[in-house]
Parts: sequence; C-alpha cells; structure tokens
Amino acid sequence: MSKNLRFGLLVFPNITQLDMTGPLQVFSFLPGAEVHLLWKNTDAVQSDGVLSITPTTTFADCPQLDVICVPGGYGTDALMDDAEVLDFLRRQAAGAQYVTSVCTGSLVLAAAGLLDGYRAATHWSAVEALALFDVTVSRERVCIDRNRMTGGGVTAGIDLGLTIIARLLDRQAAETIQLRMEYNPAPPFDAGSPETAPAAVLAVMEDRFRTARQQRMDLVRQIRAGRPSRPD
Amino acid sequence: MSKNLRFGLLVFPNITQLDMTGPLQVFSFLPGAEVHLLWKNTDAVQSDGVLSITPTTTFADCPQLDVICVPGGYGTDALMDDAEVLDFLRRQAAGAQYVTSVCTGSLVLAAAGLLDGYRAATHWSAVEALALFDVTVSRERVCIDRNRMTGGGVTAGIDLGLTIIARLLDRQAAETIQLRMEYNPAPPFDAGSPETAPAAVLAVMEDRFRTARQQRMDLVRQIRAGRPSRPD
Repeated sequence: MSKNLRFGLLVFPNITQLDMTGPLQVFSFLPGAEVHLLWKNTDAVQSDGVLSITPTTTFADCPQLDVICVPGGYGTDALMDDAEVLDFLRRQAAGAQYVTSVCTGSLVLAAAGLLDGYRAATHWSAVEALALFDVTVSRERVCIDRNRMTGGGVTAGIDLGLTIIARLLDRQAAETIQLRMEYNPAPPFDAGSPETAPAAVLAVMEDRFRTARQQRMDLVRQIRAGRPSRPD
Repeated sequence: MSKNLRFGLLVFPNITQLDMTGPLQVFSFLPGAEVHLLWKNTDAVQSDGVLSITPTTTFADCPQLDVICVPGGYGTDALMDDAEVLDFLRRQAAGAQYVTSVCTGSLVLAAAGLLDGYRAATHWSAVEALALFDVTVSRERVCIDRNRMTGGGVTAGIDLGLTIIARLLDRQAAETIQLRMEYNPAPPFDAGSPETAPAAVLAVMEDRFRTARQQRMDLVRQIRAGRPSRPD
C-alpha cells in the first residue's frame, strides 16, 4: 500500500515541534512508510518548547526521499543562510516527488531557491518575509504548486500531511490515517487566523512577534542582497 | 499572566507522540509556564512513530502540578497495571487543578480509580474498554466533568490543551495561543470519526485494530477482576 515510501523531516535547534510532530504522526501511521528525522548529525536538538528531538539520520546518510519536509519555528532564521542545509535540500529536491514545508519552513525552501517562480504558503506572521523572495505568497492553508506543497502555520502540518498521503497514494489511505488520528477538529474558539481572531488577541501576538519579525526581514534582505555575488 | 502554572505530561514507551506533542505545544506557548515530561526515569522512551522522547523529570522529582495529562497510544495497556504509574497519578491528582488525558490515556486514569463516577472520553476504538470501568463514557471531543478533562483520540489533545488554558486563565490566553499555532484546521477529508468516515475506511481500521482491541478488553477485565483482592 505504501510502496515503501520514504519521508524525511528536517529537525533543527529552535524548531516549533508541532510543525514537525503533526506530519510525522501522519507519515508514521502509514503502514510500511520509512520516516527520517534529518539533521547534520544525530545529536539531540532543542525545540522551542521543552521537547528535545533526536535526529535519526544525518544528511550524509540520507537516502533519496520521496517527500522532504521543512518545518518552521524561529530556528528557520539561522537555516536561511546555512549552506550545508540549503545544499542538502537542493540535492533532495532534485529527486523527490514532493518538496514540502510547514509554517516558516517555506522561508528555508525559498532561501534555497526551491520556490523561485512558485506559489507558497507560510505562517501568517512571515508573509511579508516570504514575499521578499521570488515567490507568490498564498494564504491557503495547504498550497500546492506543481510538486511544491507548503503549509500555513504550525497546525497546518496535519492538513498538509494528509494531503501529501492522498496525492502520493490515494484518498482512502489519507482517510484511514485521519480516522486513526480522530482528526475531526473542534477548536474551542475561532481565533486561529489573523482574519478571525479578536483584535485584542491579534494585537498581543503582533506585539510579541515585533522584534523577531523585524530581525527576520533584515536577515532576508541581507540574504537577497548577497545572492547576486554568489558563484551560481 | 500564567501565574507560573505547572503542567506535566506523562511519557512512556509506545506513546502516540501527537497525543502528547499537541497539548505540549499549547502549554509551552504559554508565557512563563513550567512544563514537565514525566516518567520513572529520564531515559528516552520510544514512541509508536519514529520519535524518541526524553523525559525531563522523574516521578520522584516532580513538583505538585496544576495540570497532569496522560496521553494515549498502545503503550497505555502496560500502564493500566503499573502500580508505580498509578500511584504517581493518584498522588498528583490529589493536589492538581485539573486531571486530564488524551485518547486512551483515560484508560490509565480509570485504572487508577481517578474517573470512578465521572464522565470521560477516549479514542473511538477504546470506548468499550473504558466502559468496563466505573465511568460514563462520553463521545465528546473534550469532556469536562468537575476537574476531570478528557479528550478523544490523538488530535483532540490540541482542543483539550486550549480548553485547559481557557479554564485555568481566560479565553484570551487560549485564543492568543490558537492564533500563534494558526489553528484554523481544514481537514482535506471528513473521515475523522467513525460516524463520518466512509464505511470502507472504517472497515480497514476496525480490521487493523481487532487484535489489539480484544487484548485490551481482556486486560481490562483481568484488572477489574483483580481489584477486589487488592489491599485497598
């Protein structure tokens, strides 16, 4: 049923763990799937929330994947300028069936040039940073453009994971996993996007994100300015 | 804002990691929250899906928690008869503001006697096992009965986490986390419960669960039969 599909999720310091653990649960519920947690080495990385994550596979040992997925979190800032990470993603993307991301993971794909000329989604707070790349920003929860599949913030990774399974296999395979995960969400409030959140709630988050957001914009501008002088 | 609230999530071999990582992300996004991943020792435990999880705090070192949460997964079978785990939960429950679970975690709370005379939820495939205890089974996604808060399967942990925050603090605190997590779910299919899943999809999962489900029923019956002879 799963054709021994190979999934790889990037893990890194300061990852938002649910960006990764959502699609991980989807992939690992697929019978026969091979799932890798990927980093430069196999030393545990600290997420942004208590959980430390032990990579299972190094970049060097990673086989060609069917699906590569880059989760998000503040840690993606450092990855946007990390040649080892970007080279690994470009290498895998060349042979993968789907090149995917959750949340601010799309900034890393963009920094690798893998979203040039594509539509892509990201966390609502990173829309303007993603727009600095040659990317058409989408506000869809799961954005599909050819073989690039990018999700919105954090919890969008579950919807993305199920969408990937449906594309790679079929609808029933995805529905079976959805049933196992009892994924019939019932958020107690309707504050899950800037469009629906109460103004006071949005103001709190805008305020909390302000400095990090400005730093990210500066960083992307530096990276973009530096690009013309690259050997490529 | 968070009054230095203390949250503890049980981790154990063969846990379904998303049962735990969903509410963990909610709790760890609460500014100032103290969050513990709890087990008998701090050796990594293997989840049911690739991720190994390193406990942060042993039972012996755990301070009194405001919220204790027991996630689910096949690993809960072994916990239902584990005196060290059940004793720890009873000790914490006596002083906690909320005693909570996700998925089959409610079977462990029930085995500890902590749901006697309460309404409680569980994964759809564990309803008949939970009903063998002195519990009124609820099919709500998040079931609240006095200070017991129990969730349905796997992904219900996110809804549960937000509900806990709203109860402990206020609605705005929960909404702020919901916005940060961009939790406006959009499942690509409507197969998230036995009531909505296509018959063929339900049949696949019923078939896959059959043996484990029968074993669990036998185990619960043994535990229930053994109870009268216990010193308590």
